[in-house]
Amino acid sequence: MSNCGVREEEAAQRHPVKSFGWAARDSSGILSPFRFSRRATGEEDVRFKVMYCGICHTDLHFLHNHWGLSVYPLVPGHEVVGVVTQVGSQVTKYKVGDRVGVGCMIGSCRTCESCTNHLENYCPDMILTYSGKYYDETTTYGGYSDEMVADHHYVVRIPDNLPLDAAAPLLCAGITVYSALKYFGLNRPQAFHVGVAGFGGLGHLAVKFAKALGLKVTVVSTSPSKRNEALQRIGADSFLDSHDPHQLQDARNSMDGIIDTVSAAHPIVKLIDLLKSHGKFIMLGAPATPLEVPVFPLIAGRKMIAGSGIGGITETQEMLDFAAKHEITAEIEVIPMDYVNTALDRLAKGDVRYRFVIDVGNTLANTQPLAT
Amino acid sequence: MSNCGVREEEAAQRHPVKSFGWAARDSSGILSPFRFSRRATGEEDVRFKVMYCGICHTDLHFLHNHWGLSVYPLVPGHEVVGVVTQVGSQVTKYKVGDRVGVGCMIGSCRTCESCTNHLENYCPDMILTYSGKYYDETTTYGGYSDEMVADHHYVVRIPDNLPLDAAAPLLCAGITVYSALKYFGLNRPQAFHVGVAGFGGLGHLAVKFAKALGLKVTVVSTSPSKRNEALQRIGADSFLDSHDPHQLQDARNSMDGIIDTVSAAHPIVKLIDLLKSHGKFIMLGAPATPLEVPVFPLIAGRKMIAGSGIGGITETQEMLDFAAKHEITAEIEVIPMDYVNTALDRLAKGDVRYRFVIDVGNTLANTQPLAT
Repeated sequence: MSNCGVREEEAAQRHPVKSFGWAARDSSGILSPFRFSRRATGEEDVRFKVMYCGICHTDLHFLHNHWGLSVYPLVPGHEVVGVVTQVGSQVTKYKVGDRVGVGCMIGSCRTCESCTNHLENYCPDMILTYSGKYYDETTTYGGYSDEMVADHHYVVRIPDNLPLDAAAPLLCAGITVYSALKYFGLNRPQAFHVGVAGFGGLGHLAVKFAKALGLKVTVVSTSPSKRNEALQRIGADSFLDSHDPHQLQDARNSMDGIIDTVSAAHPIVKLIDLLKSHGKFIMLGAPATPLEVPVFPLIAGRKMIAGSGIGGITETQEMLDFAAKHEITAEIEVIPMDYVNTALDRLAKGDVRYRFVIDVGNTLANTQPLAT
Repeated sequence: MSNCGVREEEAAQRHPVKSFGWAARDSSGILSPFRFSRRATGEEDVRFKVMYCGICHTDLHFLHNHWGLSVYPLVPGHEVVGVVTQVGSQVTKYKVGDRVGVGCMIGSCRTCESCTNHLENYCPDMILTYSGKYYDETTTYGGYSDEMVADHHYVVRIPDNLPLDAAAPLLCAGITVYSALKYFGLNRPQAFHVGVAGFGGLGHLAVKFAKALGLKVTVVSTSPSKRNEALQRIGADSFLDSHDPHQLQDARNSMDGIIDTVSAAHPIVKLIDLLKSHGKFIMLGAPATPLEVPVFPLIAGRKMIAGSGIGGITETQEMLDFAAKHEITAEIEVIPMDYVNTALDRLAKGDVRYRFVIDVGNTLANTQPLAT
């Protein structure tokens, strides 16, 4: 028996449950049907049928291996919602039929300072929902697939009044903006003025959460065509065309914080000038090239530039409950599974208002797997 | 009568008191004796004989007009201490004979959000102690001179147990590091680990204040020759040679904050890697060129890069009282007035441990003014 045969047998023992999804085989990033397997439901696990999965900009980065972290075959998807089909013997929090979700991570060390402070998202051993290495050394597969199985600690409950499809993007985009607004103290009840730079998947949710937190919100965008939608549909208080020097000049020193959701490299000096003294510039998008940061304006105004990435599990549940209370969901375009490659192309061009969500539950089964 | 004559007459009325100091006439930055005048003591003013004045790195920038803000003739000096000679009728806080000081500013609007929050240092109309424009439109002259006159609001008391010469640098270098440590929450009593990058005027005071605040302090420097002095004389807990990749690797993710006092352009990525998650990188030096900031480490660790500049008047007094309690003063080299150009040359080369202080009170009178 070859070593290869041994490994396959071991894998089959560890992961005996046949699964089906769409995967990219290489950094072309093109997705196609893919048969694989998942583990049986462990004592601490929750197993659920995937109903919907959001398409995050990060999926594009992973599909094309922009960050050098991708493991192929790669099944993306970390905004995953569905209905529980099985729970392990130690799981009391969830039962069959519950509406649940999984976000960007499905594991962490549980012992480090971050983990013990409910900040599993900053654990150095945090395990990504896809293209990560699980405790058992196997590669993790995301939510562009028929079902998920995850330790119940990393599973959250979708509140009853949130539709599953429009709630899916809350699990990455939603928690990312919510956690940043809270941690950096931009959720003060007084008339606090926050800018939201970039008006896509994260940006439109940043507006919604910031408004629900009682803030004055200005969308800062290079696309003046988005003005009406930002103000009338999403609820921003004002709109600033960041290509217009007069508008920039008028808005100098007016904002207490800026949530920058732009993923592409972009100049930030003019955005920092929009901040009042002690203002906070929070980056949620991750441009691959370093930003040029002038030091003088930071010192003269005690300004700060920071990053923030998703949020812990407890805070993710808190965010969902807050979203339910304030009826916050993402603006979405629901697509069938076999539209996913087109959707990714459109996403790369910014052609989506504001988030694609794959109707996995109704459309995955109709697609045909490749022979394996 | 020419316009020039009118202006001179007006100036003489506003500033009838003859004064004497050393000034640079142009961006060569070379200082020489200079006669000028100061205003009479107003109702709210404190007048004091200058005893000592620290030489700050900022003086170099202003002397050579690196920031385009210089007005010549330029009398530098914003670490000014002395003894009160006269007070205005409305001043009750100080009396003749008191030991007082003036730092980087002698005026502000008193009405803006920063001013009303005791943060005059961030007031957009803050008036610099030298090369600034005072309320009466005249140029301000600093402490390389025989006396100062300032609104009592911007005057602080030097505690009795602090020697005037070694206390002078606290008025800029001291408050700059103290305010940053406090505002960014690096003064927590638990075993908090702070790095101090750059080990000059600001850096050595950052170590002293951080130790007095109960922190673990590592000096991060490109000069391994400073190790013994940092540990044994100044009291740092450890020393990291930032040119040594092994030491950098060993110290990754170990610091809660870094106080960066380096004024020259320098790479900060390897310093950011020294921070734990949620760590804070505070820039106090002001490199003229923008820094290259990688976004990924900020997002992955929710790290922050911020600036901070001096501190408000109330906090400056608090810092002085804290310094008195903990017997913190600067390590200084006291020089006579006519050594100042040599001292500035040495400062530009980093050849000072750790701060030059001019013995203005004992040596200025011996220098000869140019004919005017």
